[in-house]
Amino acid sequence: MDATKLGFDTINLGHGSGGTMTRDLLDKIIFKTFNNPYLNQKHDGSIVKFDRPFAISTDSFVVSPIFFKGGNIGELAVNGTVNDVAMCGAIPKYLSLAFIVEEGLEINDFIRIVNSVKRAADTSGVIIITGDTKVVERGKGDKIFINTTGFGEVHPNANISANNIKVGDKIIVSGFIAQHGMAIMSQREGLEFESTIVSDTTNVNFLVSDLLDKFGSKIHLFRDPTRGGLASVLSEIATDIEKGVAIVENHIPLEKQVAAACEILGLDPMYVANEGVFIAIVAAEVADAVVETMRNHEKGENAVCIGEVTEEHPLKVVMKSLIGGKRIVSPLIGEQLPRIC
Amino acid sequence: MDATKLGFDTINLGHGSGGTMTRDLLDKIIFKTFNNPYLNQKHDGSIVKFDRPFAISTDSFVVSPIFFKGGNIGELAVNGTVNDVAMCGAIPKYLSLAFIVEEGLEINDFIRIVNSVKRAADTSGVIIITGDTKVVERGKGDKIFINTTGFGEVHPNANISANNIKVGDKIIVSGFIAQHGMAIMSQREGLEFESTIVSDTTNVNFLVSDLLDKFGSKIHLFRDPTRGGLASVLSEIATDIEKGVAIVENHIPLEKQVAAACEILGLDPMYVANEGVFIAIVAAEVADAVVETMRNHEKGENAVCIGEVTEEHPLKVVMKSLIGGKRIVSPLIGEQLPRIC
Repeated sequence: MDATKLGFDTINLGHGSGGTMTRDLLDKIIFKTFNNPYLNQKHDGSIVKFDRPFAISTDSFVVSPIFFKGGNIGELAVNGTVNDVAMCGAIPKYLSLAFIVEEGLEINDFIRIVNSVKRAADTSGVIIITGDTKVVERGKGDKIFINTTGFGEVHPNANISANNIKVGDKIIVSGFIAQHGMAIMSQREGLEFESTIVSDTTNVNFLVSDLLDKFGSKIHLFRDPTRGGLASVLSEIATDIEKGVAIVENHIPLEKQVAAACEILGLDPMYVANEGVFIAIVAAEVADAVVETMRNHEKGENAVCIGEVTEEHPLKVVMKSLIGGKRIVSPLIGEQLPRIC
Repeated sequence: MDATKLGFDTINLGHGSGGTMTRDLLDKIIFKTFNNPYLNQKHDGSIVKFDRPFAISTDSFVVSPIFFKGGNIGELAVNGTVNDVAMCGAIPKYLSLAFIVEEGLEINDFIRIVNSVKRAADTSGVIIITGDTKVVERGKGDKIFINTTGFGEVHPNANISANNIKVGDKIIVSGFIAQHGMAIMSQREGLEFESTIVSDTTNVNFLVSDLLDKFGSKIHLFRDPTRGGLASVLSEIATDIEKGVAIVENHIPLEKQVAAACEILGLDPMYVANEGVFIAIVAAEVADAVVETMRNHEKGENAVCIGEVTEEHPLKVVMKSLIGGKRIVSPLIGEQLPRIC
């Protein structure tokens, strides 16, 4: 697709009117890219069928900048929601896709984002079945915001619930943390610094599905530590289950350059956002096998067990430090850096 | 709920961090308002089950101003998506709810909007089952944008498809047109004028369901003429079915003061947005009974048959005027006034 053949270089308010300009934008870019029988109905919605219970998850993406090392807002919007559906123990199948575009966005940027959505959807095996496009005036938005809502059938073996977590359960992280947040930060205005850190944005649904195939109800919870990072997710879990969480600092998988960048900026990687990493809380007897399975999978090759659920210090996350000390890991309170996803 | 008891007067970036401020906002406002077993799981998504095929529809709402005569962006976001699901011949049951809030929004305004969402959801019989809240910096959004995605089981009698439309089918409008658009316009900066026009935003799902109960597959298409108005929807249908659409100008239901306001502003009501009106294209033999049924229902008391599907002038909408002339009704091209929904 080439913007020069479209007859317009930027998105303008008419593209959000619901009139022929909207139809033109949809026909020439959206329907052409996603071309599937659901969207081709061109109705206000689409009709699907699931034979089993299914999971629904929604997320709006407002990341800035919209293009960053390792990805852009388009694939982030697909991967983020695909992963949230997977975290429910489900197999993502359909996505809705809604854009809020600021007047003046370059059509070429829009096409690049739409193509990334398509590629990411294909990679995770989901179909875009319905959508919406709104345009707001210059200065009333920020280039583009994307909402995706995802749907997926619950895996037949899944029994995911914080209620299933028991003392002694192991906490496993699927890969290096803090990469997405640090990739975004390294490109932020006013913060730009030389770095080769790339976002970890990716879909983890196939790995999740493999784990459910093998370990079924021995997996008690999945959660992806996006905004607020690993610390916030673990704190939330400790609060919800009214038990303690004990983790070991030197088990936490962290790349050297990410650690260095965090140190330079005075940030704790435990609070930095991730987009392709998840934690699994599993029965102790399968923990080693879960780590082994993850490591044999492209999306989990740096998986590691970082701790366990404890009777002690209920509601609190305690981290054993490298030199043997212990400190309480609080949840993130305010904001390290906004608009990370 | 009272903002003075919340400890914050405005939404700030920390409320979108994913940390304790986000949790605080959710606990004190969202979970408290919507309080249902789906949301109370506080997971990334929710799990539901439909025994039959179901419809999905998504829409982002960016209306400005966010409070207008007859409603606000909160109920609009519920009614808009509920109606889109209904237009698929389905019975709306669940909604997802995602906010993009501009830093600085008054908490009292946020609460007012959330309460309207709750009230509108209760009125249409839908449950908010999952959600998301993002916050963007001042000047990077416009107070609040809302995305809702709706789900509803397809009515057992429904067979809604443009493919079912035949020459001779009647076109019925459920009520007065152009009210929502004119209500918004009368309050827009630079356009403010004295008027008592109120938005028609409402849920039409129960009326739609009644019609499907009674007339089943004799109803060939539902469509709600939101952005782009009645003219754009009829033009789209004529294009899709490759047949003609003939309508009669003096059958189009239009309130006097709305007509007067349109005349003052030089707007054609056929292009002005509606939010509580729909069209039904039905087999000729049931047309009178459909109108009758609508008129006996609160949401359709001004229903009227405005025309029919023709063999002549394929792809075109032709309107017979009051004085007997005929004119072609083109679809809206650009934008009459942006951000109407």
